[in-house]
Amino acid sequence: MLKGKERVDSLLWRGLKIIQNPEWFCFSLDAVLLAYFATVRPGDRVVDLGTGTGVIPLLLVARTRKVRITGLEIKAEIIDMARRTISLNGLTEFISLVQGDIKNSTAILGLGQYDLVTSNPPYARASTGRISMSPIKAAAKAEILCNLEDVVREGTGLLNAEGRLALIHRPSRLAEIIFYMKQYGIEPKKMRFIYSRPEKEPNLVLVEGIKNGKKDLVVYPPLYVYDLSGSYSKEMTEIFSGSFLPKKW
Amino acid sequence: MLKGKERVDSLLWRGLKIIQNPEWFCFSLDAVLLAYFATVRPGDRVVDLGTGTGVIPLLLVARTRKVRITGLEIKAEIIDMARRTISLNGLTEFISLVQGDIKNSTAILGLGQYDLVTSNPPYARASTGRISMSPIKAAAKAEILCNLEDVVREGTGLLNAEGRLALIHRPSRLAEIIFYMKQYGIEPKKMRFIYSRPEKEPNLVLVEGIKNGKKDLVVYPPLYVYDLSGSYSKEMTEIFSGSFLPKKW
Repeated sequence: MLKGKERVDSLLWRGLKIIQNPEWFCFSLDAVLLAYFATVRPGDRVVDLGTGTGVIPLLLVARTRKVRITGLEIKAEIIDMARRTISLNGLTEFISLVQGDIKNSTAILGLGQYDLVTSNPPYARASTGRISMSPIKAAAKAEILCNLEDVVREGTGLLNAEGRLALIHRPSRLAEIIFYMKQYGIEPKKMRFIYSRPEKEPNLVLVEGIKNGKKDLVVYPPLYVYDLSGSYSKEMTEIFSGSFLPKKW
Repeated sequence: MLKGKERVDSLLWRGLKIIQNPEWFCFSLDAVLLAYFATVRPGDRVVDLGTGTGVIPLLLVARTRKVRITGLEIKAEIIDMARRTISLNGLTEFISLVQGDIKNSTAILGLGQYDLVTSNPPYARASTGRISMSPIKAAAKAEILCNLEDVVREGTGLLNAEGRLALIHRPSRLAEIIFYMKQYGIEPKKMRFIYSRPEKEPNLVLVEGIKNGKKDLVVYPPLYVYDLSGSYSKEMTEIFSGSFLPKKW
């Protein structure tokens, strides 16, 4: 089941497991926050762009099993690892993985057929800073293989008439996220900032937009990861424990 | 000095006074927050769009007297009142008032000559809700005489090559603010949300953009008006007291 430096880790919700290779990347809080934030409804067809280990599809399925999720991932060796994770969890009925380039998402998966597209894309601009990591790590961190506009353009193309696009990113990129969403026909509808602590600048932002949606954005209360004493906040503890998940799965 | 129902109120900083007519409108926290947030530098030429009583020019001059500020206001009776306020404070050298329509700002004040444009525009869309107030109150609250796009378009036109546009608005309009800024060539550079209390949704958002600016937005820490005990927060108390103002004026 495991290859090379891979290991099996526990994935927070409903006893899920995830195979990870720490030389590539391990799932982050960011994926958990996006899976917690995105609006997912029973019956949804979902695509996760740049799915990596499959962490976001797994966490979305943990919210409701009445979904069909496709994870798109460009790297063959990552897809191989993610496939074994889906089998390990017995979720092949709910999650399928497709190898392909985000830039060609609509050509690969078809136009206008999905209710929700999620993505935890690379955050850094391609040109900023030196890149000294492995190619897989580098492509997960910086816009080497695709950029924010690619994700929004292709994501929008995959969505049906009232489909939702949910992203997590750095607040420094928020103006671009909103601009591209509106340019490609997605109206930003809900937004939430993640703060390491109260009284600091936010580290992350969650944004969900609706294709052809009515104007009007709801900015949610701040989500603090730690409280002022340095412990996880109440909400963060609830997220980790999965206590917000419906009892019946 | 006073006409009809007018009264003279104290305006927080440096002992300034303001003439207000409570039947029209009285200065709000929003104007104070914008004047506190906007980047104003010695030597700046500034325009305040829809200046009303002149509250924003007065508060900006309280930050530094090394500026020349023009307040644009459409209503003759309001300009008349604001002019008397400027005289009362002995600030005619620093603040001038021009009667005119925001939609024609660049035709009235010229293209590309200002370092900073501020505006506390009407927040509500023209079509939402019934309008039962006086025409002056109504035009201050809803987009009857001008809308957000007018403010951003004309504001951008007034600015020189690296000029700044600083606005306060409802978070529900944030996607439009960012979209129009980027569409007209302003890059959003700093943003701050105002929360009535921690753990609630924000009530207001401050945004400042730079004409032809480099991409990269800084989202500031939350500004809480009240703390959890219901008292004014420490920062709000500092804002009201003007303790952050430079000693030398």
